[in-house]
Amino acid sequence: MFEARLGSTTLLKKIVDALKEILSQSTLDCSASGIQLQAMDNSHVSLVAMSLSRECFERYRCDRNVSLGLDLKSLMKVLKCASGDDAVTISAADKADKLQLRFESAGNERTADYELRLLNLEQDHLAIPETDYACIVHMPSTEFARICRDLATFSESVVIACSKDGIKFSASGELGSANITLSETSKGDVSLQVEEPVTLCFAGRYLNSFTRATSLADKVKIGLAADVPLLVEYPIEDHGYIRYYLAPKVDDPD
Amino acid sequence: MFEARLGSTTLLKKIVDALKEILSQSTLDCSASGIQLQAMDNSHVSLVAMSLSRECFERYRCDRNVSLGLDLKSLMKVLKCASGDDAVTISAADKADKLQLRFESAGNERTADYELRLLNLEQDHLAIPETDYACIVHMPSTEFARICRDLATFSESVVIACSKDGIKFSASGELGSANITLSETSKGDVSLQVEEPVTLCFAGRYLNSFTRATSLADKVKIGLAADVPLLVEYPIEDHGYIRYYLAPKVDDPD
Amino acid sequence: MFEARLGSTTLLKKIVDALKEILSQSTLDCSASGIQLQAMDNSHVSLVAMSLSRECFERYRCDRNVSLGLDLKSLMKVLKCASGDDAVTISAADKADKLQLRFESAGNERTADYELRLLNLEQDHLAIPETDYACIVHMPSTEFARICRDLATFSESVVIACSKDGIKFSASGELGSANITLSETSKGDVSLQVEEPVTLCFAGRYLNSFTRATSLADKVKIGLAADVPLLVEYPIEDHGYIRYYLAPKVDDPD
Repeated sequence: MFEARLGSTTLLKKIVDALKEILSQSTLDCSASGIQLQAMDNSHVSLVAMSLSRECFERYRCDRNVSLGLDLKSLMKVLKCASGDDAVTISAADKADKLQLRFESAGNERTADYELRLLNLEQDHLAIPETDYACIVHMPSTEFARICRDLATFSESVVIACSKDGIKFSASGELGSANITLSETSKGDVSLQVEEPVTLCFAGRYLNSFTRATSLADKVKIGLAADVPLLVEYPIEDHGYIRYYLAPKVDDPD
Repeated sequence: MFEARLGSTTLLKKIVDALKEILSQSTLDCSASGIQLQAMDNSHVSLVAMSLSRECFERYRCDRNVSLGLDLKSLMKVLKCASGDDAVTISAADKADKLQLRFESAGNERTADYELRLLNLEQDHLAIPETDYACIVHMPSTEFARICRDLATFSESVVIACSKDGIKFSASGELGSANITLSETSKGDVSLQVEEPVTLCFAGRYLNSFTRATSLADKVKIGLAADVPLLVEYPIEDHGYIRYYLAPKVDDPD
Repeated sequence: MFEARLGSTTLLKKIVDALKEILSQSTLDCSASGIQLQAMDNSHVSLVAMSLSRECFERYRCDRNVSLGLDLKSLMKVLKCASGDDAVTISAADKADKLQLRFESAGNERTADYELRLLNLEQDHLAIPETDYACIVHMPSTEFARICRDLATFSESVVIACSKDGIKFSASGELGSANITLSETSKGDVSLQVEEPVTLCFAGRYLNSFTRATSLADKVKIGLAADVPLLVEYPIEDHGYIRYYLAPKVDDPD
């Protein structure tokens, strides 16, 4: 028996919305410690890892490990049937072929029960090595989203250059070129930890798809190191996260 | 000579918007007592009846009965040319081939006159028998609209089951299944009058089209009885209504 | 060297948005006194003239006259990368093939530099003769926009009739007909200077495209005279304007 209850559906909507941007189907691995998800995106270029520890939930019970294969667009359709402030309980019997979702309104005068068909999905468990990033940047998540969106106007490739002076995002193409520089601010909304300067080039459309998680967190953490995948991490409240990994482009951008 | 004036165009916009969702063309029957409309929807499955008694209007005059055949989409286009708080006067001479609409702004510094071509439409006057419904439910109109929209995600068919315990809306399909239950609340926003329990199945897309009238009224009245068309009624202020009728589906849903 | 700085990008966005509605590419003529633009619309029917005197700018420097050929859609794409309250500095070296745009956020912690490719465009310098208009009307720009939009529902042609009694906009077609009359108000939001009455017919879609400039000014000035192009003028703050000219249709509308 697996059962997990959140006081408001809004958080779950934001998480699934972020995931479904790059995954069509995926498996939630539920254990006594919480819920994990790890998968390559649909085009097998980037990797996403999500973790929600049991502390994220109002009530959490997981008698034995279960893997819940889900079509994320279908799950989103069901979640859209809930008001943001409905409490949501998701549950599944052992070896179930259905996920149960129950939405309850504040005064309990409305109960909505949904069943969603579970899928048997093959899983590719990938080891993500711990990395010492040469540069770690914390910045407002909305600013990162805006930069990724703006640079997409100019080129498919985005160059990120980070040094003690700041982090610079660049793109150049037919239309012209763009250079956006953020420096560490006294307000503290941009912070840089730089061991050595790094300049790397990434495919902008993946960066853009990661920013679908923007509503989950005020700040985003970016980790950069030479020849290692970029890390883009959005914390989920105090006990969870969505992390995206994207390998640098090897050919020089121009 | 027929002439009717409303202090604000908003109400008329809402009515025509609700009607045009299921009728492309229809005839307004104007008499000394008010304006009536009755018609099958475009696909001849459901029936809509509207009544606006003369008390709905700021000024009302109808010297002899007139039938005004209208293209409702065209009428809506003209109404969209009015601000919500413009006063509107609709008028037609006896045997006219045009409907006159005059919109006047509050201070009268702006007058807009429109003429809309009238149509010669065949009318099918249907007798709607008075029915004793086994269950009568009053519920918030926005809640009914939301349920109809949510269930459409799951199936073309919606099962409505009403008993003293509550009213339950169900749908089931490829994606999974949904059950939404409302019970009578102390707040009084859901009320049930149940002579005997009823379970009936309806085509969801008609229910959805009825909910276009949601903005007309806070509450909707639902009448159910075995082998009899469902009634969905939206009051229009104190002196009018739009009523929708939909026959149950005979085949079992699954 | 040419350099011009505005304290907020919003004004520039509004101007370019208005221009790009009817021009795909155009040349800004920059001189010591300010920036001018003059061009036929894409279909060579109407004419637009824009003027921004140097007083519009926070800082303005133009050592020698430069002509900046721009793709307006591309320029708009770059401007969309700025927040409304970013300061914007546009600059170009002498004989440059690129326009530089710099957006700076209030606290300066974010600097975004863009380069936009300049185009070599042929220019048709048209003399616009000074005209004594028989009727000059000032009216709210939103009201003019609404009328143009509403009348487009009825016909491609709009008849504007102006006399001491008021200004009347009319259109008539398949659907029916529309007549909207504005009279001079005590509030002063509509004012008429009429030397002699005028009735002229115009292509509505050009009028509609002019109203893209509505956000630039609360009031629009309309100048009418027989056999002379209509003037539609939107002031830009205190030191600039966008003027549109449209020749009357010669064939009678019906």
